[in-house]
Amino acid sequence: MAKELKELTKRAENYSQWFNDLIVKAELAEQSAVRGCMVIKPYGYAIWEKMQAQLDKMFKETGVQNAYFPLLIPKSFLSREAEHVKGFAKECAVVTHYRLKASEDGNSVEVDPSARLEEELIVRPTSETIIWNTYKNWIHSWRDLPLMCNQWCNVMRWEMRTRPFLRTSEFLWQEGHTAHATREEAEEEARTMLRVYADFAEKWMAVPVVQGVKSETERFAGALDTYTIEAMMQDGKALQSGTSHFLGQNFAKSFDVTYLNKENKPEYVWATSWGVSTRLIGALIMTHSDDNGLVLPPKIAPIQVVIVPIFRGDEQLQEISAKLQPVIKQLRELGITVKYDDSDNKRPGFKFADYELKGVPVRLAMGGRDLENNTIEIMRRDTLEKENVSFDGIVERIKHLLDDIQENIYRKAKDFRDAHIYECDDYEEFKEKVKDGGFFLCHWDGTAETEEKIKADTQATIRCVPFMFEQTEGVDMVSGKPAKCRVLIARSY
Amino acid sequence: MAKELKELTKRAENYSQWFNDLIVKAELAEQSAVRGCMVIKPYGYAIWEKMQAQLDKMFKETGVQNAYFPLLIPKSFLSREAEHVKGFAKECAVVTHYRLKASEDGNSVEVDPSARLEEELIVRPTSETIIWNTYKNWIHSWRDLPLMCNQWCNVMRWEMRTRPFLRTSEFLWQEGHTAHATREEAEEEARTMLRVYADFAEKWMAVPVVQGVKSETERFAGALDTYTIEAMMQDGKALQSGTSHFLGQNFAKSFDVTYLNKENKPEYVWATSWGVSTRLIGALIMTHSDDNGLVLPPKIAPIQVVIVPIFRGDEQLQEISAKLQPVIKQLRELGITVKYDDSDNKRPGFKFADYELKGVPVRLAMGGRDLENNTIEIMRRDTLEKENVSFDGIVERIKHLLDDIQENIYRKAKDFRDAHIYECDDYEEFKEKVKDGGFFLCHWDGTAETEEKIKADTQATIRCVPFMFEQTEGVDMVSGKPAKCRVLIARSY
Repeated sequence: MAKELKELTKRAENYSQWFNDLIVKAELAEQSAVRGCMVIKPYGYAIWEKMQAQLDKMFKETGVQNAYFPLLIPKSFLSREAEHVKGFAKECAVVTHYRLKASEDGNSVEVDPSARLEEELIVRPTSETIIWNTYKNWIHSWRDLPLMCNQWCNVMRWEMRTRPFLRTSEFLWQEGHTAHATREEAEEEARTMLRVYADFAEKWMAVPVVQGVKSETERFAGALDTYTIEAMMQDGKALQSGTSHFLGQNFAKSFDVTYLNKENKPEYVWATSWGVSTRLIGALIMTHSDDNGLVLPPKIAPIQVVIVPIFRGDEQLQEISAKLQPVIKQLRELGITVKYDDSDNKRPGFKFADYELKGVPVRLAMGGRDLENNTIEIMRRDTLEKENVSFDGIVERIKHLLDDIQENIYRKAKDFRDAHIYECDDYEEFKEKVKDGGFFLCHWDGTAETEEKIKADTQATIRCVPFMFEQTEGVDMVSGKPAKCRVLIARSY
Repeated sequence: MAKELKELTKRAENYSQWFNDLIVKAELAEQSAVRGCMVIKPYGYAIWEKMQAQLDKMFKETGVQNAYFPLLIPKSFLSREAEHVKGFAKECAVVTHYRLKASEDGNSVEVDPSARLEEELIVRPTSETIIWNTYKNWIHSWRDLPLMCNQWCNVMRWEMRTRPFLRTSEFLWQEGHTAHATREEAEEEARTMLRVYADFAEKWMAVPVVQGVKSETERFAGALDTYTIEAMMQDGKALQSGTSHFLGQNFAKSFDVTYLNKENKPEYVWATSWGVSTRLIGALIMTHSDDNGLVLPPKIAPIQVVIVPIFRGDEQLQEISAKLQPVIKQLRELGITVKYDDSDNKRPGFKFADYELKGVPVRLAMGGRDLENNTIEIMRRDTLEKENVSFDGIVERIKHLLDDIQENIYRKAKDFRDAHIYECDDYEEFKEKVKDGGFFLCHWDGTAETEEKIKADTQATIRCVPFMFEQTEGVDMVSGKPAKCRVLIARSY
């Protein structure tokens, strides 16, 4: 393990390779036999489960219910909403047949040509179309509104270049789809869910985010407004971490979903959709982790505290365990996830390195001398600081330490982010500086031409019109034309 | 609603139609636009979530971890295990292309013929093949064993005749896949998971089950032994509700998965797999529900207690609410799910019928007279008994009532089941009696011929060799040949 750890590429050497290495070495995920699809390994999936549990709770607190809609979507549905088809009816997995048969030699299987579907089915890239086709039958009167459903599921987009967690052909996500009586209510819902995402990112993942609204070019296909949270990775690039869309009446019109208002008149319904995915795990890794491996915020860590006894022989192990058991019990009663690793087929040094690599926030170690002195060694993963402390009051100490780590890694990420946000009014300066990463706040004239030029010149894109400050008018740094606001520009994943 | 309720077909009239009606009227699920695939509506999905939460807990207590494997499986994988291919490489959804393009007129999309996959991909009907292909890289030494993963996911089997929850082309399930060093350990694991399923069915769903082992004919494709839990529906038919398979070394050999034992010699790994699906919701409905609608066991009910205030005017509602709030709070503190329905756009009678239809175990109602008399009306869904009781001590009463309902519906289902289990030694008698349903315990000579004859004559099948009693030798009722055991025979879903 010590050897393997050394093989983890350093961030400064090759950030992208470090990310890929870390995912494999911390046993989060790996490539599968299917192009662009990953296997999420137990440790990676445990992080996703922690995220799901908290997000699900937050969604339900706003009145959202879970449901489940079909994986396969009739091909014709995708072309019902004119804008949507442009964005989503491209790189999709297409089901054309429904049966296999034995090959003539009996050693393999082949597609049965007689089992061709009349209409091809698409593995959902997102579910607006099939859900709005369903909502049509669920919504009749104003009494049926708002209708707010979410589903946790898998989706597929046949990506050409894939990276684990960041961009995979299949990924896991949640997609919320809501229907409302008024425009105002739908717009408010889209913003509410953006706030839920931002809260989750900052308070649970300890990832500071910029909230804002996308430019027209970057909008979700079929949306009138796309709200986004943008996080800064340690290489200064932006990672779009969650989006919430105000869909207007586009889908209601395409799928003919109307309701009778209180005056008994039919009106089209107003819609939103919003989603976050396993990409959040990518954001988590790239925000906090270091050259020793993962750094996980305690609130998302599958194991919050690991305890390693250091012993010679069974008798000493018994003594150490007897002393530790009440502490383990008390920690668990506080809802803290504890792993007691007394396995004897790995050396303590190996265990230490492994839990460091896996980002366990707090590590305790107790040996013979600790037993004599009534002490215990405590290590915090975020700073790697190690301390020998009194065994008395250890439970309280750990509780506070976990809170402290959660705060500290958020503050560290926020300080880093804030130190790399620049106001910039000069395009030449921008072009030079953006190479090193960072978020740039620049006046923009609102045209797609300027947006395209920036992208062509620098690969950077307008991430959003941020809500973080009072907007002032100014001059577009590229065109020199009047600009109503500053936008956030960055290179991104 | 009163009218709609009347439209629920009576069980005695048409059991099958009653089942379909109930699913729609209780808003559990509905047909989707995609053949054989259902939409699971929020109330139905909430039941699934309750099941998932408990099962997941029980799995993890046995040391199982969750993970996620790809949706799509390369076609060639399906033919790697010789028996498996016969069972699963037939009615599958086949992905042949990965891109759509705009049609010439621009109004629709069509499959891009140039985007044909080199090897077709199959939407997983079950994941043994892709998982064992992955396990190959995870297992090297005895230290890596046992490896026990589970995934919660969707699967597809292109069924010709579908019924909501019982048999759908897409369904949700969990599939556990474990790898062990020895045959004994794998066999024990398969039986352990069967016990977990039986415990869950009986203690949580209040569905009594017969545990047993399948005959060779009915085994999972690729298994050496398939263990099953079989439940009896109210029409006397069996519903296979969960299976656990001892796979021997079949998949290890097909995918070349070996480990180095403690003597450093390579050996093939031993395997199990086990699963339950949204079919459990079908079992739940058909075991307990009645002509008034769903009857749900409190431990699985999304809403355990509903409280309906009966009021004239806001002032009275305020008074009733003020009196009820402390009770609601106390119930919730006990972990009981309470819905307080003070909506004023539906009459109390409508609400009562709706919650009855939805199977809410306990309904409370409080009106003006109750307020005067310090009483409250309490109705239990299982027996439909209504009582006016003192408001004092209502929290304790509800707590006990929920336990009582859970027990009562289990006992009722068990009494029904036990009253319809027959020992039978005469084939003519069997043929006559099996028409009315029920479980038949009959001696069987162990041959596939006898099994086929029974099926051809009566549509009934051998459900399992049950573990419920000491086996005795005897004479096969069909062939007259010696028989080593009694098997459970029934018509089934």
